[in-house]
Amino acid sequence: MSPYPLLERIGSPADLRALDRRELRTLADELRAFLIESVSRTGGHLSSNLGTVELTIALHQVFQTPEDRIVWDVGHQTYGHKILTGRREAMAGLRHWGGISGFPRRCESEYDTFGTAHSSTSISAALGMAVAARDRGEDHRAIAVIGDGAMSAGMAFEALNNAGDISDVNLLVILNDNEMSISPPVGSLTKILARLMSGSTFNAARRAGEKVLGVAPPMLDFARRVEEHVKGLITPGTLFEEFGFHYYGPIDGHDLDALIPTLQNLRRLKGPQFLHVITRKGQGYKLAEADPILYHGVSKFDHTAGIQSGKSSGKLTYTQVFGDWLCDMAATDPRIVGITPAMREGSGLVRFAQEFPERYYDVGIAEQHALTFAAGLACEGLKPVVAIYSTFLQRGYDQLVHDIALQNLPVVLAVDRGGLVGADGATHHGAFDLSYLTCIPNMVIMAPADEDECRQMLYTATCHDGPSAVRYPRGSGPGVTPNQAMRALPIGKGEIRRTGRRVALLAFGSMVPTAEQVAEEIDATVANMRFVKPLDEALVAELAASHELLVTLEENAVIGGVGSEVSRLLDALAQRPRLLRLGLPDRFIDHGDQAQLLHSVGLDAEGVLAAIKQTYSLNS
Amino acid sequence: MSPYPLLERIGSPADLRALDRRELRTLADELRAFLIESVSRTGGHLSSNLGTVELTIALHQVFQTPEDRIVWDVGHQTYGHKILTGRREAMAGLRHWGGISGFPRRCESEYDTFGTAHSSTSISAALGMAVAARDRGEDHRAIAVIGDGAMSAGMAFEALNNAGDISDVNLLVILNDNEMSISPPVGSLTKILARLMSGSTFNAARRAGEKVLGVAPPMLDFARRVEEHVKGLITPGTLFEEFGFHYYGPIDGHDLDALIPTLQNLRRLKGPQFLHVITRKGQGYKLAEADPILYHGVSKFDHTAGIQSGKSSGKLTYTQVFGDWLCDMAATDPRIVGITPAMREGSGLVRFAQEFPERYYDVGIAEQHALTFAAGLACEGLKPVVAIYSTFLQRGYDQLVHDIALQNLPVVLAVDRGGLVGADGATHHGAFDLSYLTCIPNMVIMAPADEDECRQMLYTATCHDGPSAVRYPRGSGPGVTPNQAMRALPIGKGEIRRTGRRVALLAFGSMVPTAEQVAEEIDATVANMRFVKPLDEALVAELAASHELLVTLEENAVIGGVGSEVSRLLDALAQRPRLLRLGLPDRFIDHGDQAQLLHSVGLDAEGVLAAIKQTYSLNS
Repeated sequence: MSPYPLLERIGSPADLRALDRRELRTLADELRAFLIESVSRTGGHLSSNLGTVELTIALHQVFQTPEDRIVWDVGHQTYGHKILTGRREAMAGLRHWGGISGFPRRCESEYDTFGTAHSSTSISAALGMAVAARDRGEDHRAIAVIGDGAMSAGMAFEALNNAGDISDVNLLVILNDNEMSISPPVGSLTKILARLMSGSTFNAARRAGEKVLGVAPPMLDFARRVEEHVKGLITPGTLFEEFGFHYYGPIDGHDLDALIPTLQNLRRLKGPQFLHVITRKGQGYKLAEADPILYHGVSKFDHTAGIQSGKSSGKLTYTQVFGDWLCDMAATDPRIVGITPAMREGSGLVRFAQEFPERYYDVGIAEQHALTFAAGLACEGLKPVVAIYSTFLQRGYDQLVHDIALQNLPVVLAVDRGGLVGADGATHHGAFDLSYLTCIPNMVIMAPADEDECRQMLYTATCHDGPSAVRYPRGSGPGVTPNQAMRALPIGKGEIRRTGRRVALLAFGSMVPTAEQVAEEIDATVANMRFVKPLDEALVAELAASHELLVTLEENAVIGGVGSEVSRLLDALAQRPRLLRLGLPDRFIDHGDQAQLLHSVGLDAEGVLAAIKQTYSLNS
Repeated sequence: MSPYPLLERIGSPADLRALDRRELRTLADELRAFLIESVSRTGGHLSSNLGTVELTIALHQVFQTPEDRIVWDVGHQTYGHKILTGRREAMAGLRHWGGISGFPRRCESEYDTFGTAHSSTSISAALGMAVAARDRGEDHRAIAVIGDGAMSAGMAFEALNNAGDISDVNLLVILNDNEMSISPPVGSLTKILARLMSGSTFNAARRAGEKVLGVAPPMLDFARRVEEHVKGLITPGTLFEEFGFHYYGPIDGHDLDALIPTLQNLRRLKGPQFLHVITRKGQGYKLAEADPILYHGVSKFDHTAGIQSGKSSGKLTYTQVFGDWLCDMAATDPRIVGITPAMREGSGLVRFAQEFPERYYDVGIAEQHALTFAAGLACEGLKPVVAIYSTFLQRGYDQLVHDIALQNLPVVLAVDRGGLVGADGATHHGAFDLSYLTCIPNMVIMAPADEDECRQMLYTATCHDGPSAVRYPRGSGPGVTPNQAMRALPIGKGEIRRTGRRVALLAFGSMVPTAEQVAEEIDATVANMRFVKPLDEALVAELAASHELLVTLEENAVIGGVGSEVSRLLDALAQRPRLLRLGLPDRFIDHGDQAQLLHSVGLDAEGVLAAIKQTYSLNS
């Protein structure tokens, strides 16, 4: 017999809404067990999904989805939502090539009203939907479900500030407060929320939930009474009330008997409403409850034994290379400061945070602030290093241009996840950074071919008196052990790695090993260009003079990427060889294994070889 | 005799600090008169500078500048600061080619601790400086002076959230509350501030200021008493207290006898402090007080008669073309919605806001939210048009990529101030948009050669079922009256404007008239490319086949700009003509007259001609 008899009856939220209220607890238990089993097989986000099991059920039970719009902030907590909206079986292919995404996607389901992944977009999007519903005279609700970490981003504040001003729309913001972003939460907002959910208050809220359920069947019209009824028992959320929302909560987000009646009542209220729900990441799975960070994003594992440590491949990841370098560098230079916008684990800053707590700044999910804060530090002679994912650096683009580069301030950007990231997919690929960075004056941009070069480039960046970025890929490199000794590379100089004939491969960063592989096949020259900016003009000219075809290789959008600048240098030459520019195609690229993705876009050795052969007759 | 005898004695803040306290009122009067006279001669920002005369004097009087760091948010209110820090005479060249900037610049003065212009960066930067001072064991203060409009941006919130968490730094945030951003203020924060400064409270604050001054000479140690003393009389600023700041105010920002003792007291306090100061834009100049928006940014005018209306050149600006189009379009299509991040006047939305108030959204200085809000509206079938300056679109870059383009949502970006903007200078040039936009998949990007084409392109964008941008320059165009009738242009098709020989000029947007001028000299072909993306591949191939030299012309960074894609198309051809890519050089470009600036970077007809002649022998 199936271990999920009830869950298997749910093909859509309509089936869920047809269940008896008493069956929902069983459904929650089955959903949670299914999640653990499923994610242990595919890998993916676990803690956050276990934390939202009851909230997901309650939302689809109370609201008329998909007409009522649920926008899930970040979206890595939507597996339960996917399972309940017809994608239970598809979970077997989660985050895999050709399978469903780990985030909501509009193209995947009508229940995925808004694609998310980057944090803190949900209130803005839901407000737009609520305004549209109002303008059409529809009574639909728009609901943003946002975590406490995501609430710390400026964009969530901008949306609250705007929403409170538009008082006649049916917007419900649900703060899913689990005292966590991916890293532990930081910032004043955390303290504000902690005050709201202090012991007595929260216990009162639990009782309030029980009482609401006890005295009246859920379908009674509570709308007029809910304000006195619930709010009389609990502390008002000053901050959110100040912004023009009616604040309710905090309530226990794992208690369906608190959630459902509260949501039913809220569904009848007009105007911007704010519900504060307390959940626990990893809820119901003891291993994840004990270490929600470890179980935040997981690879395949045995769900009874739990994640086994020490199963590392032995190869350092670039993230680790960075983290080690930062600690070593900080030990020798007291001016070094490390900054992360809420990605301590992902950016490899755990050890730095422990060893140099007074020089470690987790500024919250606040890329804009992270960069300008770094600029302020740099003005005073400190050496700020901002560890940031390529895709999130897009959030601080203006600050990089206006506050750092324009003032030529020595801020080091450690740009992780440059290129295709794999299972996180289209929202997370670092596909555009070389395009949007190279056009900025004063920038020095490096891309390491291996782990040692990454370390030396980070050191080079620190020695440079101006803004710089070192851009490295997700995961591990070719396996070159970093040399402990640090030496600065000459700015703007590449190196020849292999001398061949007729064809020269100008490879950037992660494409160097691929270029070397290809070169063996066709006896080509390989240049490890090292510097995206400034480009090694002399090397380009030299290669142009001695080869018939130049090929640029970059794991970045081919549009506006570094191949573009190589091309411009060639245009300035009297005699110009042919140029083939290889990079990511002009479309968003789905999720899947990194190697698979590179193959799919023709950036593995096979694809590069094919592209060269198509352009150029090697036999001629 | 000079009308500014006292002001002329002030060569630096040290001179100011040597004055008798009773002389400061006279100094303020002289400074205000000087500002009016000076700005009426040069043009520039007026209202904001008149509003900060006393605050500027008080800050330099109380704080030991430049060791104490003042960071002026936005920075268009720093003329008084410039005058008092050795740049009185330089004001004659304000915002002119070779003269001083209209914003603070680190390269201009040691008193300009941080370059600003884009809003809401000051708290982040000052926090960085305060942290550095703490780490060096220095007792210096870092002071952010930020307007109520700027406070509404997410990045200010991010900085407050972080600063409240770092409790041991000497950071003073001064909220310069004039109930104004450039446009009237919006959002919930405005209402919160209005409650704080409601009549009785503010009057109490005035009395508090008087009392502090009355009972004790300014040098007494008030530090321990200031909290009871000032705060006992006035309402605490809940919002800011929640974020971990000590809140003081509101006080009258035009009353030196309130400002100076309060600042003296605050200077002795440790930790994050927040002072709420009430000022009036245009203070002391009746014409500006009556219409602070008109006197926000002015051209030369007669300061006794005031700005005379109806002196328009007769040529429409692109901004007006956009504003008229939006009204006409909204009249025919009820799905049209207009969104501005706090730039109603600058973006030409005044009439739209009046005629379609229910479809007009000023979301505050909140570019991130503006774009994702638009995405939410577009999900529901509305047709959002976001009016945004090129330089500010940098603030919403991630939202454009992640929320709009990735989901292929039909949001229209009306990108104003593309290219060199003139007197506002390096911080405001729209120099990078073609580079950072072309790499984004799904985008359609247009650049009009004239006013009619701008209107037709906006219409074309509205007809397109996906994200699009129409990018037009600041000011007026060649003077082509827009055709009332709207017709959609074929996507991705350019047009030949002139047929010549040997040389083909591929011009984008504002460069088309320049190309036509050049073409007359050398009998070149001129293509108005119209579409930056998708490029007209057939036209490029055709021109390549029939010409010896192709020249791309764009008012955008040559790095990563549209010339790059033309080059890539040429690389794919068997036979490739030479290509010359002309655009903005790889450096930040200063302020000055637009024509002067274009000349300085070689993008006027003379420069283009010279560049062609250098590349290519026209006589060969």
